[in-house]
Amino acid sequence: MVDLVAENRSFGGTQKVFSHRSSTCNCDMTFAAYLPPQISEGPVPVLWYLSGLTCTHENAMVKGGFQEHAAKNGIAVVFPDTSPRGDGVADDDAYDLGQGAGFYVNATRDPWKPHFQMYDYVLQELRGIVLETLPVQDRHGITGHSMGGHGAITMALRNPDMFTSLSAFAPISHPTQSDWGRKQLSAYLGDDEAAWSAHDSTILLKEHGWKGDLLVDQGASDQFLDLLKPEALAEAMIARRQPGQVRMQAGYDHSYFFVSTFAQDHVEWHAARLN
Amino acid sequence: MVDLVAENRSFGGTQKVFSHRSSTCNCDMTFAAYLPPQISEGPVPVLWYLSGLTCTHENAMVKGGFQEHAAKNGIAVVFPDTSPRGDGVADDDAYDLGQGAGFYVNATRDPWKPHFQMYDYVLQELRGIVLETLPVQDRHGITGHSMGGHGAITMALRNPDMFTSLSAFAPISHPTQSDWGRKQLSAYLGDDEAAWSAHDSTILLKEHGWKGDLLVDQGASDQFLDLLKPEALAEAMIARRQPGQVRMQAGYDHSYFFVSTFAQDHVEWHAARLN
Repeated sequence: MVDLVAENRSFGGTQKVFSHRSSTCNCDMTFAAYLPPQISEGPVPVLWYLSGLTCTHENAMVKGGFQEHAAKNGIAVVFPDTSPRGDGVADDDAYDLGQGAGFYVNATRDPWKPHFQMYDYVLQELRGIVLETLPVQDRHGITGHSMGGHGAITMALRNPDMFTSLSAFAPISHPTQSDWGRKQLSAYLGDDEAAWSAHDSTILLKEHGWKGDLLVDQGASDQFLDLLKPEALAEAMIARRQPGQVRMQAGYDHSYFFVSTFAQDHVEWHAARLN
Repeated sequence: MVDLVAENRSFGGTQKVFSHRSSTCNCDMTFAAYLPPQISEGPVPVLWYLSGLTCTHENAMVKGGFQEHAAKNGIAVVFPDTSPRGDGVADDDAYDLGQGAGFYVNATRDPWKPHFQMYDYVLQELRGIVLETLPVQDRHGITGHSMGGHGAITMALRNPDMFTSLSAFAPISHPTQSDWGRKQLSAYLGDDEAAWSAHDSTILLKEHGWKGDLLVDQGASDQFLDLLKPEALAEAMIARRQPGQVRMQAGYDHSYFFVSTFAQDHVEWHAARLN
């Protein structure tokens, strides 16, 4: 049911890549999972890392540097893909719509509806597979980068019982008011903006808050600040007296050089709350 | 003369990519350099990282995880390309000859001779550019992976005054007796095998040894063990009573998951000898 397609020793643990038929997305899906050396002593907690626009399961797996810190802290890391893929799956010529840009929602509009069900895929189907297949505890943290930071915050805020810890790297923070959001939400969910609020971190944080504390890192030299709108999330967070921290990191851009630099802080943040 | 083509903040320092016209290779060449935060206090030593077959300057830069350790230890890391490149440069359909496979020699045979001068390019031209352009000391360590491990060991053993410290990840250890070597050395240097010995780590180590101590890491599950021939290098090292260590790492393969796992050990090895 789940095929192991690659396996590499890494920092005393194992970096694996799996493929499986997804009933939620109606296509084959790929995901990666890092298992730390501590699994020899028993199941470990899971950190979910959701990737950004154009990424597959592979980008963070090879460029994020998470394995070193996961091995030190005894947690597994799961890297899902960012969309359904394949010849029979709808797509768009733009890099920010269709394959590689699932936006972590369940599409209700054609041509996207038959496959683009990433919200349910990550939260239900893949979570079930991970719990069934890997030596992990039913204890989860979630983080992500850019579109994946958006996915992490929206999923955790809407499902607080499913996650113990939450952080994000340069998340798309206010998609209902950004070209990184309005385009995708209207394509996947239709023009009724009422349906969009359930996928906007700033709106969700204002309404529901987060049960724990929240860590957000943002590069001050990020080339996409106008699209990410971190100031909206920060305002919502502080206005609500939400425990946590938003850190503006001088000199850093939107790349994986930024993510890898702060990967240690995020893994330790989650490990402290999961262990 | 040297153009900055990319710049990313990373672990408090800066990852840069440069392009320049090479008079040695008669084409444009690209290289990457990581500068640690300590350059604000003065010039730092340089660790040269030579990459393997098919790689550019980019693979180790994004997958090796060296920046974290270079930042902690206050050394710069330079990542040269593995060959001349471009439309006017000779190439071969095979992945292991021509562009991406310069083998760190000066070709004496056509069609390779006009551009494939990687030995002089790295040791003379690029070294001069690095010393002139970057805030570094004239104090160098050298390492590399696979074909780059071969380059590191052969260059250091033949030029002990140019390098203070030496290590390698899964080096091509005995190319005169391997299909990773005989093919390339005959293409670049001709069929007279006498000329090949100057580019064989095992032969050079037997004849000259290394003035310092030497660190070699090798994955025990490396899929290319038959081509790398680490046993020849180990035999030469121990027979000569060469100070150093060859470590056979259980479970690790030839990938960057192996390199990144042991990057910390190698950076600290060089830093201890360079600082």
